[in-house]
Amino acid sequence: MALGKDYATQECSIARALEVVGERWTLLVVRDALYGIRRYNDFLVHLGIPRAVLANRLQALTAEGVLERRRYQESPPRDEYVVTDRGIALWPALRALGRWGREHYGAEPLRIFRHADCGTEIGSYGECAACGTVVPVADVEMVPGPGLDPDPADPVSRALLKPKRLLQPLVVEPA
Amino acid sequence: MALGKDYATQECSIARALEVVGERWTLLVVRDALYGIRRYNDFLVHLGIPRAVLANRLQALTAEGVLERRRYQESPPRDEYVVTDRGIALWPALRALGRWGREHYGAEPLRIFRHADCGTEIGSYGECAACGTVVPVADVEMVPGPGLDPDPADPVSRALLKPKRLLQPLVVEPA
Repeated sequence: MALGKDYATQECSIARALEVVGERWTLLVVRDALYGIRRYNDFLVHLGIPRAVLANRLQALTAEGVLERRRYQESPPRDEYVVTDRGIALWPALRALGRWGREHYGAEPLRIFRHADCGTEIGSYGECAACGTVVPVADVEMVPGPGLDPDPADPVSRALLKPKRLLQPLVVEPA
Repeated sequence: MALGKDYATQECSIARALEVVGERWTLLVVRDALYGIRRYNDFLVHLGIPRAVLANRLQALTAEGVLERRRYQESPPRDEYVVTDRGIALWPALRALGRWGREHYGAEPLRIFRHADCGTEIGSYGECAACGTVVPVADVEMVPGPGLDPDPADPVSRALLKPKRLLQPLVVEPA
């Protein structure tokens, strides 16, 4: 994933971060992992990307320690991808990008993120104005916003219609 | 810059943002624009990317309203690229990515960002702990950190060794 022959001249922290996550699908995989998606097929359905691209991104993110591969079933063997602390630490960057997209390109918000303890929508920096604290990622609850399709075709998007906390594993009903 | 045939299923604000800036070089161009780099040749020297790639990214960012092309000399005609308010609004996302890169991959900080008014290093969310305010981007001063090469080869990196405010046009001495 090198930036090119002259990457040595780009020794800044942003460039280092982009080496790992500086590609659109990669960040959307991390987003989905924060939403609680863990299984290959659920990523596949929700992202709608080619299998080879998804497999490559999951492998790269696992190699970088952003995701961790875990066996969840022995017979037949099945693994899932769980976001690590390093991946969770990307939440502020994703939140900042999401707010920028919403402010500059979005119309109605698609998802609202709020402090699970008190229901207050979290601010620009992930803080809860009511409680005066920065909300830990696991205490952020995501709920559908007015811009979200209330009747999506795929089962993963349907499962994401229910309010849930970030990181909490998503339960997808069979189609 | 479409994400692919299934982008319609990715109608989230993060995906919208990544449509515009979700490519490594694109975000590094925005970073350089925030550092005060405005001229094609200065971007070229500092980023070390192929001319065609740079021209394409500058054009796309201008079309998206993240940069604005401005004539600065009439004879011969010469334009520069100035970051717009929309581009300045990407600072929190870049800052969050930069901090993630530094915390998870970096060693010594390469650049330190501080509140120009009081000299305090700004926090995770761009706030000044001493003044208790979120620091406007134009009041953020960048200074070299201990990890930065003190004797870089290219004139743009040399110019960036001097403390300067973000957005302030970079003055590059001829090599």
